[in-house]
This record gives sequence, structure tokens and C-alpha cells, in this order.
Amino acid sequence: MIKKENSVGLVVEQVYQENKPFILKSGDELPGFKLVYETYGKLNTEKSNAVLICHALSGHHHAAGAHSEDDKKPGWWDSCIGPNKPIDTNKFFVVSLNNLGGCHGSTGPIDINPETGEPYGSKFPAVSVEDWVSSQVMLTDHLGIKKYAAVIGGSLGGMQALQWAIDYPNRLSNAIVIAAAPKLSAQNIAFNEIARHAIESDPEFHSGNYISSKTKPTQGLMIARMIGHVTYLSDDGMGTKFGRELQNHIEGEESEFQIQSYLHHQGEVFSQNFDANTYILMTKALDYFDPSEKFDNDLTKTLAPALCNFLVISFTSDWRFPVDRSREIVKALVAANKNVSAAEIESTHGHDSFLLPIARYFNTLSAFMNRTFQELNES
Amino acid sequence: MIKKENSVGLVVEQVYQENKPFILKSGDELPGFKLVYETYGKLNTEKSNAVLICHALSGHHHAAGAHSEDDKKPGWWDSCIGPNKPIDTNKFFVVSLNNLGGCHGSTGPIDINPETGEPYGSKFPAVSVEDWVSSQVMLTDHLGIKKYAAVIGGSLGGMQALQWAIDYPNRLSNAIVIAAAPKLSAQNIAFNEIARHAIESDPEFHSGNYISSKTKPTQGLMIARMIGHVTYLSDDGMGTKFGRELQNHIEGEESEFQIQSYLHHQGEVFSQNFDANTYILMTKALDYFDPSEKFDNDLTKTLAPALCNFLVISFTSDWRFPVDRSREIVKALVAANKNVSAAEIESTHGHDSFLLPIARYFNTLSAFMNRTFQELNES
Repeated sequence: MIKKENSVGLVVEQVYQENKPFILKSGDELPGFKLVYETYGKLNTEKSNAVLICHALSGHHHAAGAHSEDDKKPGWWDSCIGPNKPIDTNKFFVVSLNNLGGCHGSTGPIDINPETGEPYGSKFPAVSVEDWVSSQVMLTDHLGIKKYAAVIGGSLGGMQALQWAIDYPNRLSNAIVIAAAPKLSAQNIAFNEIARHAIESDPEFHSGNYISSKTKPTQGLMIARMIGHVTYLSDDGMGTKFGRELQNHIEGEESEFQIQSYLHHQGEVFSQNFDANTYILMTKALDYFDPSEKFDNDLTKTLAPALCNFLVISFTSDWRFPVDRSREIVKALVAANKNVSAAEIESTHGHDSFLLPIARYFNTLSAFMNRTFQELNES
Repeated sequence: MIKKENSVGLVVEQVYQENKPFILKSGDELPGFKLVYETYGKLNTEKSNAVLICHALSGHHHAAGAHSEDDKKPGWWDSCIGPNKPIDTNKFFVVSLNNLGGCHGSTGPIDINPETGEPYGSKFPAVSVEDWVSSQVMLTDHLGIKKYAAVIGGSLGGMQALQWAIDYPNRLSNAIVIAAAPKLSAQNIAFNEIARHAIESDPEFHSGNYISSKTKPTQGLMIARMIGHVTYLSDDGMGTKFGRELQNHIEGEESEFQIQSYLHHQGEVFSQNFDANTYILMTKALDYFDPSEKFDNDLTKTLAPALCNFLVISFTSDWRFPVDRSREIVKALVAANKNVSAAEIESTHGHDSFLLPIARYFNTLSAFMNRTFQELNES
């Protein structure tokens, strides 16, 4: 069992069921949907201390605490969310959901399409960051929360926080955008495309209908995750962690570098626990995220409607969404006269830094969240 | 037909056949081998003006000129090799071969194993950079060349030039090491490993015996090449070339980014023209290249035996083998009291820069080669 000190403890999944049709950005319609979510901490009587956590590519709703006494691993951001942690559950009521199209309980490709009686598979409609945000707003309404104290996310989660600030300026006081970018570069898209190609060219993919075919594109998903992992880590970080060390070096036999077995292991675990169609859908949401597209590619103009304060955090060794990409956001926010704080955190852990309890990063988050809490009580 | 101006013109493949057994670094033995090669320019009577070109991962012997009047594409380094070009065939006799284990005519996995009467496939023994260099020395002896005026290579070719300087100090006057590294980083190995995994997990791979199975791991090889390509280009370079431009954008239909179709095309062409076992073999030679391993990981000590002059060239946007990796080589050469020139060339084209006619790069090469030619005539 994970240690209880500073933990939110045992948590229970909840489900928000929406029965009205939901029209997506693509024009496609879902006959309704469910979102699975968890909450940590207590909502105050004014319902003003709520915080929304938006997850990244392979994330889900289980961000903190444990599901059972013998759970071996806590939620994915347990280091950051809990009593006396940067996102302090003694102060805040934290909402964390699995996004629409996900594979951890929210309506997604593994669910049955009521129209056909078969799993959606690759027929699940394309979902955009805007769709995620508007479905999150519906969950927020359901919870009776008028305005979040903060919407927080790293990577693809940071893009959702940005989209909240643009689309629903009155519904959040602060946006915390971590290790994100205003849109993907050609290189970012290229890596996603190779990952998708690996999945789609796996003969077990069956054009996305692998569930009906009682199989799984395990190898393709494994390659996709391996590619992802290399882009999440920095060259230096990998060098420090693995170097050129050989695994089980036996004289006369071909030996393997440690990085090889690490990647294989990561790929295997992921391919057992994630849905391939969800992976494709989420990488496409990433690729097509480009809020400035309908504002003449002018990010300042795009961010003009925002009313919240911003905290933009980046990490020096992140080459997936480098410091420069966060600077683009900060520059546009400053030009749009927004209240923005920015921190560039020294780290050798690459893009993955946003998931790690790096002291200066957590101090920055804590300070910002504490000020947010003070302002809450002053207003 | 390609333009004849400054071209070496029509060239003919030649074959060097070695019938004696060849023992590899691994201890494995080949009963003999053939190397296919081309030459450009004329060998002088002293046989002192020869230059060896070592190819990179997916290269081959056809570096310059055309094979027929209606050839659509010249050799892979035609911009650099020819009359009045940086490697001037009016001055030098250029030797360019396909390495052992290759798939363009030299003995490799697609050849018949005389012991079984079947293609070697994945049974072809592991080949190292040292093995390439010692087989190149045998070809050199066959050509009657005692000492190269220069051994030149980019990327994996640069590693061969380094190995020449270490293993055969009396057989070259100059080593030109372009866009290389003294050994691969964990990240480099990781990308190679994912590429190999993509090939090996393709059901058409048949444990490497796909020729006997009359098939080809096309999808795996395609993914491998797509990964390679992303690492050859820079983020900025891809951004300039492709940006986020959409291909054949049709309202209401899912559109593709240009970078996607570019990668697909590159992958498809490569998978038609390259052998998967050779790709695996060559990436392993890259991964295991580490000349300092047997010299206490001390690169200065490793390079101590070298007698030639060095020119080390790197490119600012190369993130596969960044400028820092070339600086490691230069630093060790300086510490070992070698005669070394170094150039860091400004370029946005990433690792691929070494194949491009970038003015400052070609000027640097030309100046070095001209000095080499002068020294040849002075000695």
C-alpha cells in the first residue's frame, strides 16, 4: 500500500452521465456521453475553491490517492496533489476527469456505439481540445461550480487550460499552463504520425475494429509508446540514467543496452493498458490544436478574450515543447495585457519534468496556488 | 539525364572479390566476400592521389555520376564529387564502396550463404565499423594504394574515417570526419532500437528469413525510415519546409499535414529499395561503435596512434550528432597533439546538412582538399 502521509487516501471514481446529444467541433454528434472523474479535498460552501486538472496524452482521471488498500501505485500526479502539497487538498477541491474519447471509463472508442451495437473502434468521431473543454464545462455545471480557482495542466493538459481561458473566460480565475505549446511544430506532428502509422499498419489493427476481431495491435502500440518515451526524455537525462550500459552482458553473446530493455518494458506495459484508437484520437487532438488558426494566426488576438491570470512553466531540457514554445505563449499574453507569471525550470528530465517533484517547480506552483487561495478568501 | 557539366559522367560498378576467409570482430567468419565499388578521376602514377569515401547508414558505393544516359538521379554525393567540386576529380582518384553487409552489391544478408544454399538473412554475422575498415583496407591493397590522401565520411562514414586513423595510421594522410560522434548516446541508440523493433515485429519479417518466405517487412522498414528521417531533419528545418500546411485540404474531410505525406513517401521509397536485415546490421554497427571502449573510455588515449591530419565538421542544427559531439572529438585530438582543423557550420537542415551543398561547408572542404593536393605535390 502506498504511504498515507500527505496522501488524499482512498478515492472513488464517479461518473457524470450526459444524455443529451453532444455536437463535436467536427460536426459529428455523440448521442450522449459519460465522463469518469475523481475529486479530492472539500468544496467550500461558496463553491469557489475548485481546481480542474486536465490530463495529457496518456493520462486519465486517477491523479491522486489510491483505489484500494493494496494499490501498488498512487494516481499519476500524487506528488503534486494532496494535503500540504503544491495543489493542497486542505485548501482546494480538486476535480480530475478522463477526457472524452479516453479509455479509462469515459465514453471512447472501446464503448458500444448504440447505433450499431458494436464497439465504436475507429468510427469514434474525432475529438478536439475545444470539445474536451466544452464537455468539461458540462461536468463543471453538473458539479455546481461557477468558476474554477484554477485550471491546471501539463503538455496536452496545458493546451486545455489555454483553451479554457480563451473559450470560457468567466469560468476560471487562473490558468496554469505547464510544458505546453500554442500549437505543434512539424517535428511534433511527425513523431505523432509515425506512432499512428505504427499502430495502423499493425495487422492486428483491423482498420480499428480489433475489439470485434478479438485482438489488439499490441506491437504497433508498443512502438508508438517507445517513440513517445524517447521524446519525453532528454538526451542528457537518458545518458545519465542509462548511458551505454549493457544489460546482462554475457561474453560471446549479443548484449543489449539498458535503454533497449527499458523501452521494451515501457512499451509492453503501455500496450497492455491503453487503447490504440484512443491513442490515435488523442494524438490527432494534439496535432490539430491551434487556437490562433481562426484569429489570423495571431496568438495575441487569440488570447485577448481571456480574463484570468496565467502561470506558464517550462523546463530547460524539454525538446518536445521547448522553453521557446512557452515563451511564445508568454509573449502573446504580455502583448495582450494579461497578468502572466512565467518560470523556466532547470531540469535534465526533458518533457517528463512536468510529472516530477522538482523543487523549484513545486515551489513555484505552491507559491502561485497559495496566493490564489489568499485571493479567494480576500474576495 | 542529369546534367553533364561538372559531373564525373557515366560510371561503372566494379567488384572486388576476396576468396580467403574473413574473420570478423565478433569471431564469426565469412568464407570470403565481394565488395562493389566505383572510382572517379584518375590514379596518378605515384598512386598518391586516392581518396576514400565511406558511406553512412543507408548509403552505398554510387556516390557520383550516372549509371546510364537516362539515369534520373546522380550518385548520392554528386554535389561534392566531380571536376572542380570540393572533392575534385581533376585532382583526386576517388574510391567509393558499398560496405560489407550492405544491400547494393557487396556481400550481405540478401546473398546466398554457401553453407546452406539459402540467403543469409538474419544469420549474416554482426559487422562492426572495425570490420568495415579492415575490409576497406583489403580493397585498398587490391587497388595498389599504399596511402590515401584522405579518408572522408559523414555520420557513420565519419566514424569509419576515425577508425581508419586509429587502426591504420600509416595508410592515410588526412581524415575528414563530418557530422559524427565518438560513440552514440542513449538517445541515439533508443531511436535505432525502435527502428529495429518496428522491423522485427513486422509479421512479414519471419525472424529475418523473409526472402525465403518470398515476402518483405515493408511496413516495419517504412516506420524505421520515417523515424530516421525525423532525426535527420531539424525542428526548424521541418517547420520552414512543411510548417503546419495541410495537404489537399477538402472541407469536411479529414486533411493531412504535408509532413505526413512527405514521411509516408520517404518511407515507401526506402522500403522498396533497402534490405531490412542490412538496416538492422548497420544500425547495430552504429550502436556498438565505441573505439575508446578498449582504451579506458579515454578518447585522447584512443586517438594517440593517429598520424594523419584531421578536419572535423559539424552543423549547428544537427541534433542527432550535435556540434558538442564533434567538439568531443576535436578536444581529444588537440589533447593528443594531433593536427586538427574544425568547422561548425551554420545550417537549419539538421543532420542531413552533411549531404547538402552548403556554401561555407563546401568552401571549407574545398580549401582543405586543395591544401591536401598541394602537399601531395610538394612531398
